[in-house]
Order: sequence, then C-alpha cells, then structure tokens
Amino acid sequence: MVMHMSFSVAVAGASGYAGGETLRLLLGHPEAEIGALTAHANAGTRLGAHQPHLRALADRVLTPTTVDELAGHDVVVLALPHGASGEIAAALADRGDPAVVVDLGADHRLTDADAWRRFYGTEHAGTWPYGMPELLHAGETTPAAQRAALSTARRIAVPGCNVTAVTLALQPGVAAGVVDPADVVAVLAVGYSGAGRTLKPHLLASEALGSAQPYAVGGTHRHVPEIVQNLAVAGSPGTRLSFTPVLVPMSRGILATVTAPLAPGADATAVRAAWQAAYAGEPFVELLPEGDWPASGATTGANTALVQVAVDEAAGRVVAVCALDNLVKGTAGAAVQSLNLALGLPERTGLTTEGVAP
Amino acid sequence: MVMHMSFSVAVAGASGYAGGETLRLLLGHPEAEIGALTAHANAGTRLGAHQPHLRALADRVLTPTTVDELAGHDVVVLALPHGASGEIAAALADRGDPAVVVDLGADHRLTDADAWRRFYGTEHAGTWPYGMPELLHAGETTPAAQRAALSTARRIAVPGCNVTAVTLALQPGVAAGVVDPADVVAVLAVGYSGAGRTLKPHLLASEALGSAQPYAVGGTHRHVPEIVQNLAVAGSPGTRLSFTPVLVPMSRGILATVTAPLAPGADATAVRAAWQAAYAGEPFVELLPEGDWPASGATTGANTALVQVAVDEAAGRVVAVCALDNLVKGTAGAAVQSLNLALGLPERTGLTTEGVAP
Amino acid sequence: MVMHMSFSVAVAGASGYAGGETLRLLLGHPEAEIGALTAHANAGTRLGAHQPHLRALADRVLTPTTVDELAGHDVVVLALPHGASGEIAAALADRGDPAVVVDLGADHRLTDADAWRRFYGTEHAGTWPYGMPELLHAGETTPAAQRAALSTARRIAVPGCNVTAVTLALQPGVAAGVVDPADVVAVLAVGYSGAGRTLKPHLLASEALGSAQPYAVGGTHRHVPEIVQNLAVAGSPGTRLSFTPVLVPMSRGILATVTAPLAPGADATAVRAAWQAAYAGEPFVELLPEGDWPASGATTGANTALVQVAVDEAAGRVVAVCALDNLVKGTAGAAVQSLNLALGLPERTGLTTEGVAP
Amino acid sequence: MVMHMSFSVAVAGASGYAGGETLRLLLGHPEAEIGALTAHANAGTRLGAHQPHLRALADRVLTPTTVDELAGHDVVVLALPHGASGEIAAALADRGDPAVVVDLGADHRLTDADAWRRFYGTEHAGTWPYGMPELLHAGETTPAAQRAALSTARRIAVPGCNVTAVTLALQPGVAAGVVDPADVVAVLAVGYSGAGRTLKPHLLASEALGSAQPYAVGGTHRHVPEIVQNLAVAGSPGTRLSFTPVLVPMSRGILATVTAPLAPGADATAVRAAWQAAYAGEPFVELLPEGDWPASGATTGANTALVQVAVDEAAGRVVAVCALDNLVKGTAGAAVQSLNLALGLPERTGLTTEGVAP
Repeated sequence: MVMHMSFSVAVAGASGYAGGETLRLLLGHPEAEIGALTAHANAGTRLGAHQPHLRALADRVLTPTTVDELAGHDVVVLALPHGASGEIAAALADRGDPAVVVDLGADHRLTDADAWRRFYGTEHAGTWPYGMPELLHAGETTPAAQRAALSTARRIAVPGCNVTAVTLALQPGVAAGVVDPADVVAVLAVGYSGAGRTLKPHLLASEALGSAQPYAVGGTHRHVPEIVQNLAVAGSPGTRLSFTPVLVPMSRGILATVTAPLAPGADATAVRAAWQAAYAGEPFVELLPEGDWPASGATTGANTALVQVAVDEAAGRVVAVCALDNLVKGTAGAAVQSLNLALGLPERTGLTTEGVAP
Repeated sequence: MVMHMSFSVAVAGASGYAGGETLRLLLGHPEAEIGALTAHANAGTRLGAHQPHLRALADRVLTPTTVDELAGHDVVVLALPHGASGEIAAALADRGDPAVVVDLGADHRLTDADAWRRFYGTEHAGTWPYGMPELLHAGETTPAAQRAALSTARRIAVPGCNVTAVTLALQPGVAAGVVDPADVVAVLAVGYSGAGRTLKPHLLASEALGSAQPYAVGGTHRHVPEIVQNLAVAGSPGTRLSFTPVLVPMSRGILATVTAPLAPGADATAVRAAWQAAYAGEPFVELLPEGDWPASGATTGANTALVQVAVDEAAGRVVAVCALDNLVKGTAGAAVQSLNLALGLPERTGLTTEGVAP
Repeated sequence: MVMHMSFSVAVAGASGYAGGETLRLLLGHPEAEIGALTAHANAGTRLGAHQPHLRALADRVLTPTTVDELAGHDVVVLALPHGASGEIAAALADRGDPAVVVDLGADHRLTDADAWRRFYGTEHAGTWPYGMPELLHAGETTPAAQRAALSTARRIAVPGCNVTAVTLALQPGVAAGVVDPADVVAVLAVGYSGAGRTLKPHLLASEALGSAQPYAVGGTHRHVPEIVQNLAVAGSPGTRLSFTPVLVPMSRGILATVTAPLAPGADATAVRAAWQAAYAGEPFVELLPEGDWPASGATTGANTALVQVAVDEAAGRVVAVCALDNLVKGTAGAAVQSLNLALGLPERTGLTTEGVAP
Repeated sequence: MVMHMSFSVAVAGASGYAGGETLRLLLGHPEAEIGALTAHANAGTRLGAHQPHLRALADRVLTPTTVDELAGHDVVVLALPHGASGEIAAALADRGDPAVVVDLGADHRLTDADAWRRFYGTEHAGTWPYGMPELLHAGETTPAAQRAALSTARRIAVPGCNVTAVTLALQPGVAAGVVDPADVVAVLAVGYSGAGRTLKPHLLASEALGSAQPYAVGGTHRHVPEIVQNLAVAGSPGTRLSFTPVLVPMSRGILATVTAPLAPGADATAVRAAWQAAYAGEPFVELLPEGDWPASGATTGANTALVQVAVDEAAGRVVAVCALDNLVKGTAGAAVQSLNLALGLPERTGLTTEGVAP
C-alpha cells in the first residue's frame, strides 16, 4: 500500500523568477496540485507570456494577488517583493485559513528587529521558522534542530540565496570552533537572475556580457545581517563579516568564496573532520573529495550545494567554497525542501541532486 | 495495483556529454536501473571527475567499453564516436544478447549508403529505426507511422541534434505541400556542447565568448543528408538544402531558422493549419501561439521543441523557427522517448517539458 | 610640413551606445576636437555615469539636446531616436550653420517615402547621402560612386548595422550578376548592444544568457527596405529578401549568413572573382582566404567587415558571411569613415582594422 | 620640428594571446616598426590563422623562435611559456645585441629565489626591473621610484595580470599604513583568456558558459609570492595573503576584490586620502568618484585600471576593488607602457584609456 499526501498549493508572484522556479519544481513534485497563480501588474495575462519554459502551465491566466485568491489551499507560496507577505499571512490567519505559508521574501527571516530596520528601513514583520534544514545549531556536529523545527512549522521564511551559500560554506567550522568568526570575508560570483526581472540599466545583457561588476560593497548588502544571524545560531555570537557580491555573466549560479582565520589550535585535519561530520548525512549538501573544487554550473537546476574547504597555512586562513543554483537551493528548492518537512513528506520529494550541465 | 516495467541499462561513453545527459535523464526515470558505465580513455576513473553534476553516480568507476561489460542489460545506450557502434551491436547480437540498443551516434541513421560514404568517408553500417517519433511520413497530417515503427524496434538510431531542429521546424509544410522543398535554407544558432568535449582551439571559452562563428558552411555538414532524408520521408523527394550552423556563446541550445518558398496556391491559413495539425497531439513538440517566437533558453534541460511559423508575403517564403536543447530533445531525450516506445512504457516517462529558465 | 584639418564635433545623444561609441572613436581621431555633448533625460549628469569606459570625458557634464548647444561646430553627430534628427538638421540650416551633419538614426536612409511610412509609420524626412563608402553601384566592379558622393556630402545618413552586414556580404554577387537577388535569405546572429540601452525584459542579462531568440521575424524588421534599396543600387531592382535577426549572448557583433541562388551560367570561379574585385582595394572590408570563415569576435572594436563566400552546388546557392562590430563598422565607424571622406581627410584616419580579441 | 624615436621590435610567441595583444598595441603605436614574428609549433604558418583579428599582419609568416631571428631589433618582446626567456636574453647579451628585452613571462619577476623554486619548481633565472610604473615604494605617497627605475632599464619583467589587479587595489593603503597587511584576502573574477590558448577540458566554452569555477585555491597560485613581494616593496614586509581566482564566463577582464583590516587609528578619511594621493597623477590608474564601483567591461582593450575603495566599519575592513583588462594593463599594455619609459618616449604613446564597451 502506498500512502499519498497530496497538497494543493497557490503561488503568489507567479510571473517572477522565484515564483516561476517554484512552479517548475512543483510541476515535478508528485504530491503537489497547483492551484491559484497570482500576480500584480501581470494579472489577467497568460503565464506563458512570462514563463515560456513552463509549458504545462502556459495557458493558465494569472489572477490578482488577493487573499481571496490565495485562501483555501493547503500551501501558499509567496514570491513577492519585500514587505508584502506579512499582511497576506495575517489575513489568511484571520479568516482561519489553515494553509502552510512559505515566504520567499525577506520579511520574516531576521530575528533582530533593529537589524531589520537598519537594513530594510521598515518595521519588522516578525520572525518565522527559517527554511534551511541544514542550519547547524550551537553544539551540533550534524544538523538536527533546524530540521526538527521545520517539521512542525506552519510558516516558513526561506533564506536569501547568497546567505545560503555563505552559511553552508562556513558553518561547520563555526560550529566546531575551528575557525575564528570574528573576521569572515566572503566574495561571491553571482548570476543575474538573482536580481529578478527588474528593469535597470546595469542588468541589461549588453552591460553584463563580457564584464564583472560588484554591487552593495562595503557592508551594505541586506544579506549581511542574515548571515551573521546564521553563524550566531551555529555558535558564534561575535561574527564580523566583509561581504561582496560580484555580478558575472551567467543567468544562474552562486560561487561563494568564504575565508576565516584558522582558530588557534585547529589544523587541516580538524577542519576536514568538521565539514565531513556536518554534511555526511545531508541529501542536498555535499563535501567534495579533497582537492576537487566545485563549479556553479554543476548545480544548475538542482537542489544541490557543493562545498569544499582547505587550509591555507601561509595565510592562516580556512578557505571554503560553496556552489549552488540561486533559484533552486538558493530559493525555490529550499522552499520545497522545507515544505516537505512541514508536510511530513520525505525531504527529497520532487527535488533532484543532478544538475543540468554542461 | 501498479504495473512496473523496470529495465536495466548500460551506457557506453558515459564520460562524454551525450552519455552524461543520458544518465541525467535515466536518474530521473522511474523504471531505469543504471548498470554498467563504460568509457575508453577514462576507464578506471570516477564518473564524478567527468560529470560533476551527476551527484548520485559520482563515485561509480568507469569500466572499459567492451561487449562483456555491456552484455546482460535490457538496454544498451551507445554514446560513442561515429564508427564504433555497429561492431558492438553485432557482437551483442552474435552472443544472443536480447538488449535493445540505442545509438546516439550517426552510424545507423542514413538509409542511403552512398550519402553515408560521401559525408562520412567510411563504409555504411546499415540503417536502424529512426528515433524521432514525431517524424511525419508522406500523406500523414499528424505523426503516427514513425511512432508505430519505434514501438517494435530493437535497434534505434537517434537523430542528429541539428537535424531534429530543422526537421521539426519544416516538416509540417512539406507533408502538407504548402512549402516548396526545392529551396530550403536553414541557419542555426548552436551552443558549444554540440561539439562534445573535443579539445580544439576554436572551442575554447576565450575564443567563444563575445563571438559568433559559422562552421561547415556551404553544404559540407554531415547533417545535410539526414535532413534531406527526413524531408523525403515527409513527402519531398527533391529537397535542396542550404545549411549553415553558427556557434554562439551558449553551452546548450539550438535556434534553427528555416525558410522555404511558399508553395503555389498556399497561404498563411493553410500554413498555420498544417503546423497545427502536425503537432496538436504531440507531447514534446509545441506550436506556440501566433506571434510568439521561441527562445532556446526556454527548453534548457527539457525534452521540448518549441516551434513557430509565419509567412513572409514580400519574400514569398515561409519562415519556421524551432528551439530545442541539443542534448535533450536533440540527443538524450530523443533516446529516452524512443526507448519508452520500444519498451512499451508511456512515452513521457522520465521526461519533462519544463525548461530550466531563465 | 604636415597639414592638419582639425575639426570640432558635437555629439547629440552622448549617453547612448551609438553616441558613446562615436566618442570612443573620436577620442582616438587625431583631428577631432570634441565639443558639446548633449542628452535628453540624462542632461545635467556626468558622462562618466553613463559611459564609464570613456575615461577622458568622464567628468564632462551633458547638456540638453538643443540647436543652440549643437550650433557652431564643424560637425554634428546625431545619435538620437528615430524621428528627431530631421528637425535639428533643418534648424541648423535655417540659422546658416555650416556644420556637416551625420545622422546615426534611420530618418534619412531611405529614398522611398512609401517604404518609410510602411515600416516606420511616420512622414518621410527626406534622403541624405548614404554613409557606406563601399556600396557598389550598378555596373561597378569596385566601389567608387558612393565614395565620390560622400566626398562632397554635407549631410550623411549612416546605414543600419544589420543592413551593412547583409549588403557587404552579398552585393558583389548582385553587382556582378552571379547571384539571383529574387530570393535572398539572410539570418543574423546579433549582439544585444544593437538594441541600445532600452529597458525591456527580453534584453535583460538573465533572459539573454544561455539563450538565442529571434525577433522581428517574417519580414517586419525595419532594415528590410534598406537592404532592398542597397541591392537595387547595386543593380538588382527586384530583390526579395527573407530576413531574420537572432539575438545571441554577446554584447557586440553581427554574424550575417546570407544566401541567394547562383545565377544561371555562374560558377564558383565567377563568384570568387566578383567578391575579390569588389573588396581588393577596400581598407575596411576584407575577403578572407578561401576556406576561412569569419568570427564576429575578430572585429570587436574595429571598423572591419570580414567576408567569405562559397558556392553550395547541391543547394544551388551562394552562401556569403559577413562579420562586423555593430557599433563600429555597423554604426560609429561608418560615421567616422564617411565623415573623413566628407572632410577631405584620409579615409582611415582614427579608425583601426585590428579587433580586440580574443 | 617633430622628433621621432622609432624602434624596431620582434615578438617571440606571436601566435599566443599575450603575443597577439602586444602586436595589436604595437600596430597602434606610432613609433613601433614590427620586425620578426616568431613561434614554436606554429612556425611556418600565417599569423592570420592564429590571430584573425590582426588584419594588418594576417599574411605575415611566423618564423621559428631562435636567437638569430630575434637579434638585430631595438626591442625584443618575449611572450613565451615560463622558463624560456632567460636563455634567449643571455644569448642576445652574449652576442652583444643591444636590444631592450621585455619578458611577459614570470621568469624574472621574483627577487626571492626560494619563493621562485617553491612555486615554480625550477632554478631561479634572476630578477629584472619590474614593469609596473605605478608600484609604490615604501615611504612614497605617489609612485616615482619604480617609474625612474624603468626609465633606464634594458630588461623588463612584466607583472602577472592578477598581481597587477591586487597590487593596484591595495598598495596605497599599505604604503600609507592605513591597512594591516597581515591579513589580506583577495578574490578575483577572471576571464578565460588569462589561461592562454591551452587545450584543457575546463577551459572549453561548453564548460565555462553558465558557470563560475575557482582554481588554485588555498595559497597555491603562483601569483601569491609576487603580490607579497609588491606589498613588501610598498612598505609591508609581513604580508599574509589569502588569494582565490574564480574563472567566470568572459574572455577578458579581472575584477579583484581585496580586503584588509583597517589599521588601528586609521579611518575612512585617511583611507580615501591615501588612495587619492597614490593615483591622482597616474595616466592609467584611476580612483573612481566615491560610491562608483568599477565593472571590468569598462576597461576592455584599454590600459586602464579602475579602482575604488571603501571602509566597512562593521567588518573592520577596507574593501578595495580593481578592474582591468588582463591582456592590456595586465600584460601587453604594461609591457608597452614600461617600454615607452625605457625608450624615453612619452609614457602614454600607443596606449588608450578608453575601453571598448559595452
């Protein structure tokens, strides 16, 4: 006998990149029944006009993003600009709608209301369970507490894509105490889809092709407090982070290079042991064989994070690299993975570890 | 009760691009059990060293491509350089091995031994059932005969990637008699993975980035006789084809622009009707809504061919465009689709129509 | 003794791609003194904010595009949206300003007012001398008449970039009568800078990377009547043209594949002779050695058009390819080259044939 | 009266990327007369077969790289694999050839023979004057000593491309004592042409497109000791450097993100002052207006290095970014610039600051 736990799911913001990727994964999810697809400015148009790669849904017409449209599903995924999700979740709750709500936006990720106000400039909407099952908690050598928290969650805040890459790269060392989190430096090569379908000159193909350009340099990026928060959960209250994303000519993908000082007394063996222990049992985070460094292209379309780490003795630093697809493990895949946990489904359901490469 | 028809499958040439893509699809195929993985120069090495995106098979060690290794599976997929597959298939037959053999190479595609010798320079190895279920036969308005032929095939010759794009773009017009096949012109923007992992200077990233370069211009490309053959099957014995592939800076994808004179008496209505009839029931070939033109990126990783057609009255020509992923619908996806038919499985099994985009 | 003929030049539309490329070339032109730099929405801002690659002019502040600003220079280059240049040129003439006016827009390219109205939808602004020195006139085997016309021009209409590629590819065959212009097919791989800095979703890097997409398919592109006009000048009043541009992931460059039926009685020798005669003496158009096919990347930043031609006997067609940089030989380089002629300067002044490659 | 100081120049390794770029610049240098063009495996072939973008030299036939071929020129540029230049320079000296020899390879860059052996594994060939005119020496606030050294040099070791980017990014802070060089972290997005025309699988376009991949991680890259050496010259004997280059899908360009702890007592004002003083008078290194961050594409084809710096108070680090074209300011442009100094020519001769963008 086979048990099925099928669920209906509405996606708000279905014409954007995060919403589209969520739909792509849900179309391959054996238990998902796709319900309402809503949009703001694009309401009333065919999904195929915005997501020409989603053939099975091409003729679905987008409806306006209202609580009436979203109510009545088992799951509601919100792929909206920052600031919009709190109100919708509250309205669903008010009418007693029992949906599990998954927020792909930033609104409910941070626990520190001050940090939220400093980086986002608005009032804090509150904190939801954080959709990174692999997040290590202080004292853990392998992830367990966060996965457990998600298994009972009715609200899920999906992490930022850059945050996931940096956190997965470095957290084993923080949790094991083999790196010094007081001087972390992260530089990321990031693809353009991370910026969404925003119409800005520097996001044009003509400007992007043949060029690499940094942005939000000098500690101003909104992902900084979220990374600091994660490393605090992993055991380091005193993280200091220099964070620089660099846009490079690819559509998808993040290649995060993260370094931190080797902790006093730690060595290469201890470093490797920490990373191995952290990810040995993980379905979607893989420590590569020693000496192999990941390329972001190997993760395209997959829910995989590929990690490698080395000790640079001369520099006195641990260097960790994480490659992932910003729209999958960095966004929609993390959503589905967390949702599987919340719904009691096997965590891997509807997710692949095999990238579309080359 | 659920019936299962699981099958074991060996892949020869598993360290190349075509072999890798076949494995990626087979890993997502619910009935496939992956058996021997063989290679030539790379025998003895981990698959992960060559296909870092195939995480589930990363630790499998490649064995040499011999008949002993390949024997004993339900299916053998040959992703080998041209010229190697005939001998292996014969040896399998000699020992009574009942495997269905799928050849991703060119050896058994052509029916005309002279054309083979002229374009490939070696002796003709014979002709196998042609792995394009959507191929129209003369007199058909919707594909049926080729699909039927594949349902009983024990040998399958998978079409060339460019061939598939040009054939799917134009064949409805040929079969319906609304285009004149005596003066077909096809120009294709093609990605670099079509050249395989060959180490040649013009295939280097430094040369490819920021540049478009044609190759095999002037009727010399080996896909020319195969296209001519397909259009002959579709009803035109007298096809003349000007064919020019242009390498453009993308890894995957083909965007074929194919034009032919509008046949006397035909008009835009007849043209649209022919294309609609041909593909209305096809799971993997889609005629877009009028006015929408396909982008190759919408098909990445999917077994989809997106087609559009228009009549240019001033030029007196029909213009048809087909976009597909050269490694999926152009190679490995066509193999799995044809194999599903040969094994009596639902044609869509293990295949997706949803591209990984943007 | 060295004679100098220095000239002052104003550039209207200096914050756009065509204006920026003109400035890049003028900065390397030994006789040019750059005067007013004007813009519309960007007036009042630093040029460096829009053209960060033009270091020598980074601190120049853009002024509004008015006749007062543009008057008083020896040369005025108009890099404006279609429709704006006629009025400015007339106003300059009205006040007796003797400037040579060079229009990078389309307004004054076409001689046929009906064709203008049909493709552009507005009233025809008149026809200016056409800035393609290499344009063959009927009866010529090497270009002369157009160069002569430009030597006395006070108004210059710079050709469209795609037009230049297709014209240079095919015109020798038309002028020599070795191709049949009644059935020309042109398919172009084009870079994104050709679309200017327009903010449209399909021009975003996220959409462009990893994809090829056609546009203006089926005879609707505005460059069609201009190509037809050029081939008429070259001797074919009855040109019919199927024209399809395909955007590919590069910023600059056009690779035009152009085919036409081999004329009755013509052969490969006659074809080669026609192309050789046409371009043997040209400083900026080069017929490559037989068998070499051009890559667009070899022309980046240079005023070079690389051409190759072959006869496809089986198809009965001549295949010609032209590679050029859409912003140089396709726009700003053609402007400077034509201007040199109009000012009595050596045609090569300030222009290079050496591309920035790889 | 105009004085000319024309010079003849031979280029060894003319079929490679560094040799080709040197030739491109020399073709635009008003005083250079290009003499022997030599190659190893490509001797006997046309230059046009390897450098199709260098039209003016396309028909020159490459001769073998021998001392006889190279002797008798005013300047010899060596664009050879590491290890080959020392012997040639010695042989030229032995026969009394007075040529200025410029080495684009690494052989003569390092002053520390131990570091050479450790990173290159061969015997040290000696140290030549270092071709970075902008290199700050301890105690300098603006570059002078290195420029002076080059003005009398007869041998020039051109810096590594990554080295130039990191050095120019950070050295003002080191020389001024406002950063702590004991914990420098540099992560670079680098284009594929930096690897030369080497035929390796990971350099193929199919692998590169859509992916970012690090290499030589963990302190193993040969540019590490050269950067440490430069920062020692600038005043820091105790530099420790974590260095990670990441290949991204572009042909040219380096975007180096370099961070170091803010020195005790230093602040943002002191930081900006140090960078401004260092580069205010430099023709080819430019500190951008505060808040503008450079894109590598703005430097394509130009001898420009664009620099920006900021203080990240929360991280306690200075973040400096340098963008340049690896083949120009990173290689061939640095060679020409240094050569101009050595020959007593104006430093800017034959070099541009205007990039080919977008």
